[in-house]
Amino acid sequence: MAAQRKTEDVSKLRYTDLYPFRDDSAPTREFLQRVFDILWAYVDQQQDRSSKILDFHMPEELMQILDLELPDEPQPLQRVLGDCAEALKHQVRTGHPHFFNQLSSGLDIVSLAGEWLSATANTNMFTYEIAPVFILMENVVMKKMRDLIGYTNGDSILAPGGSVSNLYAVMAARHKMFPSYKTLGLKALPQLVMYTSEDSHYSVKGAGASIGLGTDNVVSIPVDKCGRMKVDLLEKEIQASKARGHVPFFVNCTAGSTVIGAFDPIHPIADICQRHGLWLHVDAAWGGGCLLSKKHRHLLDGVERSDSVTWNPHKLMGTHLQCSTIHLKEDGLLLSCNQMCAEYLFQQDKHYDVSYDTGDKVPQCGRHNDIFKLWLMWRAKGTVGFERQIDHLFDMSNYLVQKIKDRPDMFHLLLEPELVNVCFWYIPKRLRGKPHSKEKEQELGVVTAQLKARMMNTGTLMITYQPIWDKPNFFRNIVSNAGVRREDIDFLVDELDRLGHDL
Amino acid sequence: MAAQRKTEDVSKLRYTDLYPFRDDSAPTREFLQRVFDILWAYVDQQQDRSSKILDFHMPEELMQILDLELPDEPQPLQRVLGDCAEALKHQVRTGHPHFFNQLSSGLDIVSLAGEWLSATANTNMFTYEIAPVFILMENVVMKKMRDLIGYTNGDSILAPGGSVSNLYAVMAARHKMFPSYKTLGLKALPQLVMYTSEDSHYSVKGAGASIGLGTDNVVSIPVDKCGRMKVDLLEKEIQASKARGHVPFFVNCTAGSTVIGAFDPIHPIADICQRHGLWLHVDAAWGGGCLLSKKHRHLLDGVERSDSVTWNPHKLMGTHLQCSTIHLKEDGLLLSCNQMCAEYLFQQDKHYDVSYDTGDKVPQCGRHNDIFKLWLMWRAKGTVGFERQIDHLFDMSNYLVQKIKDRPDMFHLLLEPELVNVCFWYIPKRLRGKPHSKEKEQELGVVTAQLKARMMNTGTLMITYQPIWDKPNFFRNIVSNAGVRREDIDFLVDELDRLGHDL
Repeated sequence: MAAQRKTEDVSKLRYTDLYPFRDDSAPTREFLQRVFDILWAYVDQQQDRSSKILDFHMPEELMQILDLELPDEPQPLQRVLGDCAEALKHQVRTGHPHFFNQLSSGLDIVSLAGEWLSATANTNMFTYEIAPVFILMENVVMKKMRDLIGYTNGDSILAPGGSVSNLYAVMAARHKMFPSYKTLGLKALPQLVMYTSEDSHYSVKGAGASIGLGTDNVVSIPVDKCGRMKVDLLEKEIQASKARGHVPFFVNCTAGSTVIGAFDPIHPIADICQRHGLWLHVDAAWGGGCLLSKKHRHLLDGVERSDSVTWNPHKLMGTHLQCSTIHLKEDGLLLSCNQMCAEYLFQQDKHYDVSYDTGDKVPQCGRHNDIFKLWLMWRAKGTVGFERQIDHLFDMSNYLVQKIKDRPDMFHLLLEPELVNVCFWYIPKRLRGKPHSKEKEQELGVVTAQLKARMMNTGTLMITYQPIWDKPNFFRNIVSNAGVRREDIDFLVDELDRLGHDL
Repeated sequence: MAAQRKTEDVSKLRYTDLYPFRDDSAPTREFLQRVFDILWAYVDQQQDRSSKILDFHMPEELMQILDLELPDEPQPLQRVLGDCAEALKHQVRTGHPHFFNQLSSGLDIVSLAGEWLSATANTNMFTYEIAPVFILMENVVMKKMRDLIGYTNGDSILAPGGSVSNLYAVMAARHKMFPSYKTLGLKALPQLVMYTSEDSHYSVKGAGASIGLGTDNVVSIPVDKCGRMKVDLLEKEIQASKARGHVPFFVNCTAGSTVIGAFDPIHPIADICQRHGLWLHVDAAWGGGCLLSKKHRHLLDGVERSDSVTWNPHKLMGTHLQCSTIHLKEDGLLLSCNQMCAEYLFQQDKHYDVSYDTGDKVPQCGRHNDIFKLWLMWRAKGTVGFERQIDHLFDMSNYLVQKIKDRPDMFHLLLEPELVNVCFWYIPKRLRGKPHSKEKEQELGVVTAQLKARMMNTGTLMITYQPIWDKPNFFRNIVSNAGVRREDIDFLVDELDRLGHDL
């Protein structure tokens, strides 16, 4: 009876009945509680392993199903609540334990709480004046991460994604080595060249285009059969650039490549950078979380020798999207690189120490509060909790590898994983028993895309696929959801076979 | 009794009792409900006009008050909840009706609900595959905004802040006019030059530094006494660049400058751009919301002649931070400019129309879901509701202007506002009655900073200040919170005098 009455109440309400338009708190409280109930139902249902991950529709079809129209007149709040429920109904459950599709997955509850709080505090990270608590938290967490990297000093900031973090690193390197570019531009400098492996994230090449170097001046270094940069070829390319009169200045070393999960060897690359006076950037957007694990941090041996590191807590550490960090060994560089000294925002005569204002350190002006959720997770889990989480992801991933190896008729593992990327082909019945060959790989590549389409249409499992090198499409399975258990890996294997055996 | 029992329960819980680590839903439900209660208390208290906006502490002092340490061991959830309450206690209440400090303020409840939902859905905006609903919403809202601008076709995307939107515009312009830069870099091109008014946002100059043009090649055009670009000087500078053999390519026209709220005249600037074949960008990050008001959209007359527009709904439209958009008149340009064709993410053989995937349109790879909150607000308010909101902000701002004019002894208005930026000096008792002069302005500048310090320490009012041109520090008051009423403006005036009369 009570519930019934509430429903009637909301059905009459409009946004003008809410804060700040009306002083009565009841409608706002009621509306937000109902939003909470809808969100809770989504969180709860997602943990039900028998529930679907998605109910896929083609874009044109989904446009018909959903009412997305932007009306002229205000709509009742009852309808707005319906909109929320409807949106979630058709959204992909990225926290579902059978979603293995992306480097970011899962739904950490403490991180979620942190993100809700950040939304409620609704502030901008550019000055201490309007974000005192969050600015201090950023300082504390960034210092901790630099400690884990092995930087004794330095500076860091959060950026909107790893691609932007990589861009900031390239800009900082350019500024450090050629400070006059800031006023004069690249035309006044020699031809700069950067180096990155052919398997590195595309944002490194993108950064070369963005800053005006041109992608021709971002040299792709081939990788070995494990997906790691061929270090001898790096040195050869550097020498070749020099012979052309160009000026090498930046090497990107990937710690956890996107597809293979490979780690470029940092020490030999650092030796080369040292020899030639180049900036060493480690793109650990994906693999950075390993630094929290005593068992796995050896994958980043030598990272302390770098000049900058990209590290995305929204990947292995399970923080909500987005949470990406960039760390520099040298303090002061972010500021001198990006400072435009806008007097209207970063007044130097404020009554507090304005070195706490961060807005002039990046090309962004306003910044979203991406730190609170990470800080709160760290409080809840402790460093030890993060370590257990990372180790668990590796364990689950290794369990999958073992299952794949146990069924050589049904699966073909492309290579031994270094990280939690497990790359494999699924082999349908008609192709089992046939010897592995280039021709068979082509057939398996076709099967892969077909099987993915079936997954999407069934909605019970999501694993991404892609080609690489001379290999046609194959699955790349990621365990980045701390909630994945052995039973989920068992399901994954069985479901692939259920959906794909007759392909 | 029931409440007591619950408290005891939570006090024993740790994060490992939550989803996804335990299957029992009760602890997660209880924890999230308690987070909700903390957030609700914050939202509710913020509407209490007698409450403080902030409890200011110097950074070093606040570091002592707060326990920000990142522990090794997991902490009880009871403590995590305490952390949430403590963080909010010391945070600046940016939704308080007496917070007039920034271009973004207020706390729209529907937008808040949208942001909570986005956090719960926790997905990435780069592919239709994992964000089908939100990608479609982005399409619908962006089309609506382009309609309001007056573009009949075109393309748009959300960016992490107006500075990045402006950067994307510069990059799109460069690509349109010199597509070979992408591979060859700027050294293969003639010396490009951009133009922007001296009062424009610093990110335009920053974009010149970022992309490698150099700030020397971003020409500052003086403004008139109202803060608008002097159009005749723009044309002179373009001619001067050409005479030097440089190639003008980009003009930024500000629609709502940060300090003054001035609008550069679009039509005459568009005429010049047309004559010289230059890209016209309108930075309407701040003023864009006026397009929703029949009464005020004349401020952007001619915007449909531009090639690109930056427009931040997180400013005048009151959407949560961040929500920034960039619109281009030409479709396909974002993609051809930024595409790096990462096959592992943007596979072309997916079973749906991959033109819905947006990730290759921007240098960011992952993107935060900034669209849902805006879409949801639009559903709740309707276009009419946004119009009323914008008109209300102007009304409140005009009311303040009238009050300032009514007390010429106590206030000095710097200029008639075009937008909701009201720029003024407060005059303490000792300086009243003295004729206005350069010397008096210097004294008022000192008073301004002192009065701001008192505001911060008292915590009852927040208005920012800055110098501009030959004017020393003055207050710039912003009404961007839809909840501001006449009584709040009355309070503002009285409180300034209460805090500052004896300065």
